[in-house]
Amino acid sequence: MSIVLGPNQYGKAETRVVRVYRDTPRHEIRDLNVSTLLRGDFAAAHARGDQANVLPTDSQKNTCFAYAKQKGVGAIEDYALDLARHFVAGIGPVSGARIDVEEYRWERVSVDGRPHPHTFVRAGDDVRTTAVTAEDGGRAWVISGLDGLVVMKTTGSEFHGFLKDRYTTLAETTDRILATSLAARWRYRAWPPPDGWDAAHAAIRQILLERFAEVHSLALQQSLWEMGRAVLEARADVAEIRLSAPNRHHFLADLAPFGLDNPGEVFHAADRPYGLIQCAVQRDDDPAGEAGPAWSGPAAFA
Amino acid sequence: MSIVLGPNQYGKAETRVVRVYRDTPRHEIRDLNVSTLLRGDFAAAHARGDQANVLPTDSQKNTCFAYAKQKGVGAIEDYALDLARHFVAGIGPVSGARIDVEEYRWERVSVDGRPHPHTFVRAGDDVRTTAVTAEDGGRAWVISGLDGLVVMKTTGSEFHGFLKDRYTTLAETTDRILATSLAARWRYRAWPPPDGWDAAHAAIRQILLERFAEVHSLALQQSLWEMGRAVLEARADVAEIRLSAPNRHHFLADLAPFGLDNPGEVFHAADRPYGLIQCAVQRDDDPAGEAGPAWSGPAAFA
Amino acid sequence: MSIVLGPNQYGKAETRVVRVYRDTPRHEIRDLNVSTLLRGDFAAAHARGDQANVLPTDSQKNTCFAYAKQKGVGAIEDYALDLARHFVAGIGPVSGARIDVEEYRWERVSVDGRPHPHTFVRAGDDVRTTAVTAEDGGRAWVISGLDGLVVMKTTGSEFHGFLKDRYTTLAETTDRILATSLAARWRYRAWPPPDGWDAAHAAIRQILLERFAEVHSLALQQSLWEMGRAVLEARADVAEIRLSAPNRHHFLADLAPFGLDNPGEVFHAADRPYGLIQCAVQRDDDPAGEAGPAWSGPAAFA
Amino acid sequence: MSIVLGPNQYGKAETRVVRVYRDTPRHEIRDLNVSTLLRGDFAAAHARGDQANVLPTDSQKNTCFAYAKQKGVGAIEDYALDLARHFVAGIGPVSGARIDVEEYRWERVSVDGRPHPHTFVRAGDDVRTTAVTAEDGGRAWVISGLDGLVVMKTTGSEFHGFLKDRYTTLAETTDRILATSLAARWRYRAWPPPDGWDAAHAAIRQILLERFAEVHSLALQQSLWEMGRAVLEARADVAEIRLSAPNRHHFLADLAPFGLDNPGEVFHAADRPYGLIQCAVQRDDDPAGEAGPAWSGPAAFA
Repeated sequence: MSIVLGPNQYGKAETRVVRVYRDTPRHEIRDLNVSTLLRGDFAAAHARGDQANVLPTDSQKNTCFAYAKQKGVGAIEDYALDLARHFVAGIGPVSGARIDVEEYRWERVSVDGRPHPHTFVRAGDDVRTTAVTAEDGGRAWVISGLDGLVVMKTTGSEFHGFLKDRYTTLAETTDRILATSLAARWRYRAWPPPDGWDAAHAAIRQILLERFAEVHSLALQQSLWEMGRAVLEARADVAEIRLSAPNRHHFLADLAPFGLDNPGEVFHAADRPYGLIQCAVQRDDDPAGEAGPAWSGPAAFA
Repeated sequence: MSIVLGPNQYGKAETRVVRVYRDTPRHEIRDLNVSTLLRGDFAAAHARGDQANVLPTDSQKNTCFAYAKQKGVGAIEDYALDLARHFVAGIGPVSGARIDVEEYRWERVSVDGRPHPHTFVRAGDDVRTTAVTAEDGGRAWVISGLDGLVVMKTTGSEFHGFLKDRYTTLAETTDRILATSLAARWRYRAWPPPDGWDAAHAAIRQILLERFAEVHSLALQQSLWEMGRAVLEARADVAEIRLSAPNRHHFLADLAPFGLDNPGEVFHAADRPYGLIQCAVQRDDDPAGEAGPAWSGPAAFA
Repeated sequence: MSIVLGPNQYGKAETRVVRVYRDTPRHEIRDLNVSTLLRGDFAAAHARGDQANVLPTDSQKNTCFAYAKQKGVGAIEDYALDLARHFVAGIGPVSGARIDVEEYRWERVSVDGRPHPHTFVRAGDDVRTTAVTAEDGGRAWVISGLDGLVVMKTTGSEFHGFLKDRYTTLAETTDRILATSLAARWRYRAWPPPDGWDAAHAAIRQILLERFAEVHSLALQQSLWEMGRAVLEARADVAEIRLSAPNRHHFLADLAPFGLDNPGEVFHAADRPYGLIQCAVQRDDDPAGEAGPAWSGPAAFA
Repeated sequence: MSIVLGPNQYGKAETRVVRVYRDTPRHEIRDLNVSTLLRGDFAAAHARGDQANVLPTDSQKNTCFAYAKQKGVGAIEDYALDLARHFVAGIGPVSGARIDVEEYRWERVSVDGRPHPHTFVRAGDDVRTTAVTAEDGGRAWVISGLDGLVVMKTTGSEFHGFLKDRYTTLAETTDRILATSLAARWRYRAWPPPDGWDAAHAAIRQILLERFAEVHSLALQQSLWEMGRAVLEARADVAEIRLSAPNRHHFLADLAPFGLDNPGEVFHAADRPYGLIQCAVQRDDDPAGEAGPAWSGPAAFA
């Protein structure tokens, strides 16, 4: 038996790249948080501190900025694919690269009802994401998604008929608030999407919102399944979708001591603990491959 | 000389009250974070732990929930005024009360282009605030505002002609990105506003956005002054406005080593340090009174 | 009536200065977060964007770094006094300066039981603070403190005999957990302290901890009063101390449905809402002056 | 082709359990953040909202509190193993359970140099963790670790001889600050450890600190490898360790414009971007099995 180096990777995390397009008076912006991770032949760096194979993380950061000019920043998936392929093809010891990008949403400020050409206001809490992995030999994966899509239904949610054990005290209910901060990740099996990356993302976000609204929910599990299934039904280019949803509990305030009834009107929004419901919706002819990338981000390694 | 008790206050902070109106199938919601602080004759609690004059913070929390049913939650200013006056008038030892409320913004999910009757999605990062202080004898102050209004201009901002000392290395510029996360507080001198609390808040938020967009900025100070002045010019019911704006620096990426020019296209968005610009815009016949409440929240005491 | 510029200030916030002393193999470090705010004649910057009187916040940042070398960083109070006086004395239009410093606590890593000469590990959650304000004419204030001192007593705390109104449902108790994350600020009336800034801070921190432990608490108000009074009794150089303490509720878990008793053994630690108790302990011959600086930090303006 | 349910799990996240032992006047505490995740036959809950197989997350929370009394809370690994086995053995549809626990570090307040019997102060930023997974048939995994161990070396770190591409501008250095916030996870292959869970955790934490201090670092990769290797050499009960370390850059302040030299004395501590270095150190006869649990926590699913 001996002690050996296992899986390892390194890169530059959270480079905040802002790209402005100012070719016309009506500016456009892309506001990104970019992380790079390289895999390859880095054993000597671990064993002896020999850096001959190690491209500095500072150079990776420089590449993120340079590519924002050289290649431009359109859809984050294209930008991440360019970067991932560059590191794999251009840096000898690198056999695989993962690029994670978050994009912040902005909308134009309206002045006298007209969108302003160069002034923007942050729109919405949710963040668009992509994780692109490329490997030697040309294989690549694109897993796009969103984080922090905060939604709430004030009715149309039930919870009853559940399994009861000796520690069960929860009352059943046929009408409750259902609230969550959704994280979603979906894997494209063909790209670019026929409608383009930006339109595809917007369409999937809208499907998730609409199905959350329309499904009469007997369980958050059911809502998630229906949301995921609707995405796969609508999008032949999506192989799989994974959903993670904290159940942000809203407890009915007990107003009886004060002589007041409370028919679903006044709630306490709790922070912790929260339920956590997670599921994948897949195609039976294209399950997530064993050799595929981790769905979670770079920080999840340890 | 002796050691004496100075200013003191206590209450319940960050009660998360969610009020649902479900009288018709089209539900309405108010999502609040409420903090109460009471002042009065609490010397014995400090000196001897004698609680006879101390209304528990738990009771204050209960009151927040009960009032959400009894009085309802319309505009947060009305809700906070009701609570503040209740504590001053109804609890003997209490001579002053301050109620801080944050309100989270939600909008309806659209399904097939139609707003859904009971499904909502969080809208925007910024939070609406009010701080209401009431005192024995009927005096009251209403200071409303917003936090976290993140805005960016990609041009129309200059910075030059500044004072230079021996530690000055900054280059002058006639074209930079100007970005901030605005906090604003304004004090009403008459209420309710003629257009109602909700419309008044929306109107002031819009004035701030429009002036930020339209002012060609030679300094963030100038932008803030023009934004504040526009609010006072438009709103006779506002006595004073205070603005606090971090200058979120966007540094031009240096691409010259890679043979690339960068005419205002690729930026690095920095976290810290940041500039911090703060000013008040007042009326000369109604400056903020010495006896008035602190503008900052309950956590600012120590 | 006309619209006028009110109080205003600007500066550079959260410059992260790390000072290493390496004159001997046994290194010393000071790890700081520094914010500067200048007051003075800046009306033209607001009115017209005229920057002739405005020292860039970038120059202020440079000064923080340069002074860490020129003057060195000993106690944060000395460093802040140096900076504040420099801006007031050295920059013409500046009539007042406030310097806020946070210092992070580090201790040496022990190797084979011996403190390592140049390796450190972060020690404790609490942060040492100072806020120094200097004005034209030589007046200055030093308000030092700490943030985030998290403490817990598992007994020796009661809560009963309190005022009850129609919204009171809380049960009285003679034994509860008392937990808080203390923020303290104290104003020196003479300096430097006879034992030096560092020893004075350590002594006051220790008094606060010891009194929190030893006072049998009938109210968090009583604990705070006794803690503050002990500081003033022990330190003739301290004029006043202000304490802000969230009451981090620990609720007894209800295990009765499972046939288990729970005599103060299993608790749920809640996040929100929390009680918030704040008081000042003063000397009757030296109350906080009206003309003195705000006790809270730069972000509290709006 | 059809759309199918893929991997799924659900549970209660972040239940804050505080256990007090008060059998003698010298109290002991365990302060935990507990998350449970169940896997099993939950297809009907997704497909139809049929909850017959679903134990409510509320019941899982109740179990965490009840077990803190029934079984007590000693080492978090034992507590998590008890909970995981309970859900697998006691709840019919459950075939696997994962319990994640974070433990916060406290130390006794010293009063007159003596540890106080029932007053505690939070000690250190780092958190002790465990993730226990149990499955039908008796298999189990214990992956313990720590998060947020913030360490800094002010010398003894070099970085040179690295690979250079066209985007490389970084200067080589033979003396820099090396700082990180370490996350570590290690998998036990036999348990309980001969010295007990608590002593084992303390020993591994100390090995990590000592090796970080003593290794003259030519790369953060080298430091991590040596730290991991030392753990495996010292602990026959540890099969594998994974380390994730952000490289918290400390940039030398440029004081030359002010006529000052800066031989490694004044630094700017940057927030983002940061390097991110991750590696596993394994035994060649016991690599991490494919069938083993994810190393990262519940939030990493999507």
